[in-house]
Amino acid sequence: MGAATTIALDAMGGQRAPAMVLRGAQIALKRFPQTQFLLFGDQKVVRPLLSKRPRLGDALTLCHTDEVVLDDDKPSQALRNGRHSSMRLAIDAVAEGRADGVVSAGNTGALMAMAKFVLKTAPGIDRPAIASLFPTRRGESVMLDLGANVACDSENLVQFALMGEVFARTVLGLVEPTVGLLNVGSEDLKGNDAVRGASARLRGALSPIRFHGFIEGDDIAAGTVDVVVTDGFSGNVAIKTAEGTAKLFSEALREAFRHSLPARLGYLLARGALKKLALRLDPRRYNGAVFLGLGGIAVKSHGSADAFGFANAIGVAIDMKVNGFLEKMRVELARLYEAQAAPQPEAV
Amino acid sequence: MGAATTIALDAMGGQRAPAMVLRGAQIALKRFPQTQFLLFGDQKVVRPLLSKRPRLGDALTLCHTDEVVLDDDKPSQALRNGRHSSMRLAIDAVAEGRADGVVSAGNTGALMAMAKFVLKTAPGIDRPAIASLFPTRRGESVMLDLGANVACDSENLVQFALMGEVFARTVLGLVEPTVGLLNVGSEDLKGNDAVRGASARLRGALSPIRFHGFIEGDDIAAGTVDVVVTDGFSGNVAIKTAEGTAKLFSEALREAFRHSLPARLGYLLARGALKKLALRLDPRRYNGAVFLGLGGIAVKSHGSADAFGFANAIGVAIDMKVNGFLEKMRVELARLYEAQAAPQPEAV
Repeated sequence: MGAATTIALDAMGGQRAPAMVLRGAQIALKRFPQTQFLLFGDQKVVRPLLSKRPRLGDALTLCHTDEVVLDDDKPSQALRNGRHSSMRLAIDAVAEGRADGVVSAGNTGALMAMAKFVLKTAPGIDRPAIASLFPTRRGESVMLDLGANVACDSENLVQFALMGEVFARTVLGLVEPTVGLLNVGSEDLKGNDAVRGASARLRGALSPIRFHGFIEGDDIAAGTVDVVVTDGFSGNVAIKTAEGTAKLFSEALREAFRHSLPARLGYLLARGALKKLALRLDPRRYNGAVFLGLGGIAVKSHGSADAFGFANAIGVAIDMKVNGFLEKMRVELARLYEAQAAPQPEAV
Repeated sequence: MGAATTIALDAMGGQRAPAMVLRGAQIALKRFPQTQFLLFGDQKVVRPLLSKRPRLGDALTLCHTDEVVLDDDKPSQALRNGRHSSMRLAIDAVAEGRADGVVSAGNTGALMAMAKFVLKTAPGIDRPAIASLFPTRRGESVMLDLGANVACDSENLVQFALMGEVFARTVLGLVEPTVGLLNVGSEDLKGNDAVRGASARLRGALSPIRFHGFIEGDDIAAGTVDVVVTDGFSGNVAIKTAEGTAKLFSEALREAFRHSLPARLGYLLARGALKKLALRLDPRRYNGAVFLGLGGIAVKSHGSADAFGFANAIGVAIDMKVNGFLEKMRVELARLYEAQAAPQPEAV
């Protein structure tokens, strides 16, 4: 029996919190029975919910606070005034070694600011990034940055490539994940200085990364690479555009099946196959935006997540811990900087 | 009977050219019987194809050239060496007033460079942009820039907003189209200097545009606004990400219907409704990337377009001519610069 993993949960973050957080923890516990939880939140609302879940209660320690970070708090405000909030105390638990990772469905900006302040940026990383998994024609891939850094230079992009590569190895279990840089064309001359500079460095003979080169927007869903690297502006636009397009499609499909009596019958017959499809592309399966490049594990669940989605976010945090993400990052960074320090043939 | 519209066609551009161009012209002619065509290309290959289409032949003048721009020609190369190419001669016809617009499915970069050189940038516009229609939950919207300008300042974005607004009025027939700026969040402080500056100016009390404010990637397919304004990097990423996601979805759906016998039967029953859905979201209906901000009408068809898609690109050029896009642009630009010259309350 391996050592238990302890996850700190912000009970008060998210539209359906705290009930959704507790149900999510229970689902995660079934999947990962070794897990312990530290739950931060208001005991007045949490305790009654907990009394209905004795199985979860055994694996969970409730830490009371009646302060919360609100969804419209500015990050700076949350940093200054939220020192006793459920979100902050959950992050503190990771910094103090009482938990292996933190999961919250609360205010993204506040969570990033607090996590950066408390857990610090990992040595060798200039800026943390937000990463997420998404479904592709070939399976799943990871994309970063999704919005932490609106503008990035080539050094940031190279570091994102490295973080994403290690994440794909630890959480997707890939042996040699391929990495692509999102651009507006695949030719060397396309794009801006940041992507051209990053491409030249990632192509370098000593780069420890299996670099595919530039990719375009349609390569994201095609699964052309395992890791899509981009700045936070384009990454945010891309992931939300994909979400919106998927929604347009599934709504139009639902309408089509309501269109006529034969269409309704057709739906009934094809239902099993369609449910499999829906399951494969279910956005809840891809819930959990991970903050990479910090000194600890922090996962942000979608604010509108349900218990199933929140359980997946917890699963990502557990995977990162169990598969040693932080240690692997340290090793890879050392390899990268060694490679760069060595005399290197000019990249063309 | 109104005056005929004359469209110059590059017979040699596109993967399936010239047969696809001729078939496309014939489809467009059925829809717009007033149209005349000037067709630029190699008579050795075009004439035999044309002899099978006497109806089209009557509406078409063939202008021979055996020079072509290749897909991998650099824009600068095409400009220098392609002066007698089918693409260039078709553009020249617009500049010389012999045609009302040009349509080509050839090399995008070369077409933009040549069109800019020959037709010039419209007065009051710093940089032309590429725009395209796309399907939304509410109908259709237009997005620009899709890749002509990788980096944009706030002035460029304001001009794009104006061009897109006039395009939506002329081609979509909207009376007061709404305009949104693509960003990574809807709050005023989000994003970079360019989008914040453009937003402040578009919000200005005297702005002639119905400005919605910032939108995010998922608003694109939702149809939150009629005109999506963004820089060429994010716009290119967004439109291609949407294409890729749509492809992932339709392939997964096709697979689902092949999954079992009941699913196959279900497909047969629902086929009518599904075909309507496919028609509504058919990418060929949205073929035709328009170069806005030039002194003439130039439309780029997808290189892989079929005849149906190419006919739609011709249709966009005809709509722009018939509905007076260039004149409306001149009027709107004058309004914008008048509004800006007037004393204006500080935008917040």
